[in-house]
Amino acid sequence: MSVHVTAQLPLPPGADSSPRTTAPTRPDGGPGGPRVTALGGGHGLSASLAALRHVAGSLTAVVTVADDGGSSGTIRREMDVLPPGDLRMALAALCDDTDWGQTWAQAMQHRFRATKLDPQDATLDGHALGNLLIVALWELLGDPVDGLRWAGALLRADGQVLPVSRTPLTISGTVLSDADGTLRRRTVRGQVALATAAHHGHVSDVRLSPEDAPATAEALEAIETADHVVLGPGSLFTSVLPHLLMPEVRRSLERTDAKKIFVTNLLPGEQETSGMSHADHLRVLADHAPELRLDTIIADPRTVAHRERFQQAAARMGARVVFSRVASGRDRAVHDPLRLAVAFQEAMDEPDVG
Amino acid sequence: MSVHVTAQLPLPPGADSSPRTTAPTRPDGGPGGPRVTALGGGHGLSASLAALRHVAGSLTAVVTVADDGGSSGTIRREMDVLPPGDLRMALAALCDDTDWGQTWAQAMQHRFRATKLDPQDATLDGHALGNLLIVALWELLGDPVDGLRWAGALLRADGQVLPVSRTPLTISGTVLSDADGTLRRRTVRGQVALATAAHHGHVSDVRLSPEDAPATAEALEAIETADHVVLGPGSLFTSVLPHLLMPEVRRSLERTDAKKIFVTNLLPGEQETSGMSHADHLRVLADHAPELRLDTIIADPRTVAHRERFQQAAARMGARVVFSRVASGRDRAVHDPLRLAVAFQEAMDEPDVG
Repeated sequence: MSVHVTAQLPLPPGADSSPRTTAPTRPDGGPGGPRVTALGGGHGLSASLAALRHVAGSLTAVVTVADDGGSSGTIRREMDVLPPGDLRMALAALCDDTDWGQTWAQAMQHRFRATKLDPQDATLDGHALGNLLIVALWELLGDPVDGLRWAGALLRADGQVLPVSRTPLTISGTVLSDADGTLRRRTVRGQVALATAAHHGHVSDVRLSPEDAPATAEALEAIETADHVVLGPGSLFTSVLPHLLMPEVRRSLERTDAKKIFVTNLLPGEQETSGMSHADHLRVLADHAPELRLDTIIADPRTVAHRERFQQAAARMGARVVFSRVASGRDRAVHDPLRLAVAFQEAMDEPDVG
Repeated sequence: MSVHVTAQLPLPPGADSSPRTTAPTRPDGGPGGPRVTALGGGHGLSASLAALRHVAGSLTAVVTVADDGGSSGTIRREMDVLPPGDLRMALAALCDDTDWGQTWAQAMQHRFRATKLDPQDATLDGHALGNLLIVALWELLGDPVDGLRWAGALLRADGQVLPVSRTPLTISGTVLSDADGTLRRRTVRGQVALATAAHHGHVSDVRLSPEDAPATAEALEAIETADHVVLGPGSLFTSVLPHLLMPEVRRSLERTDAKKIFVTNLLPGEQETSGMSHADHLRVLADHAPELRLDTIIADPRTVAHRERFQQAAARMGARVVFSRVASGRDRAVHDPLRLAVAFQEAMDEPDVG
């Protein structure tokens, strides 16, 4: 006995039962496709995962655990668990393209709104359901990696999500800002505070605490055994750099035989890295991981102001650049999953020699 | 590309990958089996659903929405939605018997514990994950019935869960208690308060507010088109009676051609109906629904003190009694799903004539 009601169900607003632009074509997908491990956090990692699902044979996300804002921040303060926010976004990005999978993705991302109480008097306001599902499984299973494997299995996710560490991390940095002609230097602690401060100043000396938090063995293995490792897109200081700040992760990235692909941001000079160019981003990466070589860098040509300077910075890291229009036609701040998938495909092919 | 990890996953504590005693045998199950609608709430309804899954071809739960305790109570105060607790328990009972389904059932029932904060300072302490999943879908879909259909679809539940009303209900009653020889009569409002007060006094005049809350059309249809309607087991005043207090539901129960099965409680004289016998329970039912005829009553013979009096009360409602040992061998306060399934099967068969 079972109930098959999906077909007749009313769809949540935003769900679309017509053929999706993100329909899985997966020319290289399936068991024979490449093993891909993507590192990052937040919306940037979701964007790479949404694209990689179309080209990867197996897909693993290695995710930052330094979030301290909103629902994740509250959960960190109340319970002895990792902040689940970035992990939730990665899981939602791996939900399949059926109505079932996309409804799960929407439910995971849903945030509660207390309609009858002042938000600060309410217990649930602002919590994301997916964060709570992950925490429930952590409490049931007792281990973050086991809990996330079950979360992926329950959602029938198209890939695996791993925390970069089993220890909740805190990010801090030094922010240099110019207040009325006086240079001010201060230490800013916490992902939200750092991202905010970085809007108005120059960030340096980004660090994680605890400094010696061990990386997850499963994450290191996923980096070392992959055919391709993808870094970015995403906030430079809070989603990309934290991975390179963990010595074990940095060493795995240096040691792996995987081809390394870096995806540049669409708006490098806005948000937390105001005034910085793509070349500046690459320099920050090289400063933090001098031994790191990249194979390919994907960049939307319309986002690169000084192409030559950028290509020189790329060459210094050993990378060729794949210029590809990967921004969405509707919102140039957002990667289009299929366009980015095409760029990944090109990056994964051997470059033409001759 | 997909990940099939379920087989190797560590199981949550309490999950059992060995053949389950509740393995679906379903001799009458499948598309050809009978259509069954079960009315109730709380643990009692979960018990009937866990058993009915083995014998029903299609299964619908019609669930009370008067809970005001714990997580449901908090949700009612914060948001303009039905209390989800009883609906969550019904959904969990309909999760399938695979590791996947049983892990979903455990996750749905999981309650958060704030380990780093005093529970009263914590936002999540005591909330059940499944309540939050249901509320998220209500907020996404905008309708309680649509949201529950999606919840069932996302969990691949073996049946449908319907709220008896789209209006949150409040139950109240008059409690007569004897304090040091002085008879005290008071009105008690709210499901938790009434269940507590009933421990120590005699409950009468149970009522719902709003009095004129419409029943869910889908629930009435499920009662009227079923082959069998099941009432009980469960708390008499807070899980069974509320259904009969809704005039439309009572009329549907009187009008339906379905065979009506009532399942008695295993410990009628304990908890909220202290001092009451099975016959007293039937009298309360008849008082509230004088026109209601029952076809079969299932009772565990070891729980019936005065068999003759009980059978007379049953006969007055038109019912034959199926005596069957339905209590669990390990805990006589709990129904064994397979034993109760066998009793349902017997109740659903035409009685021997002659």
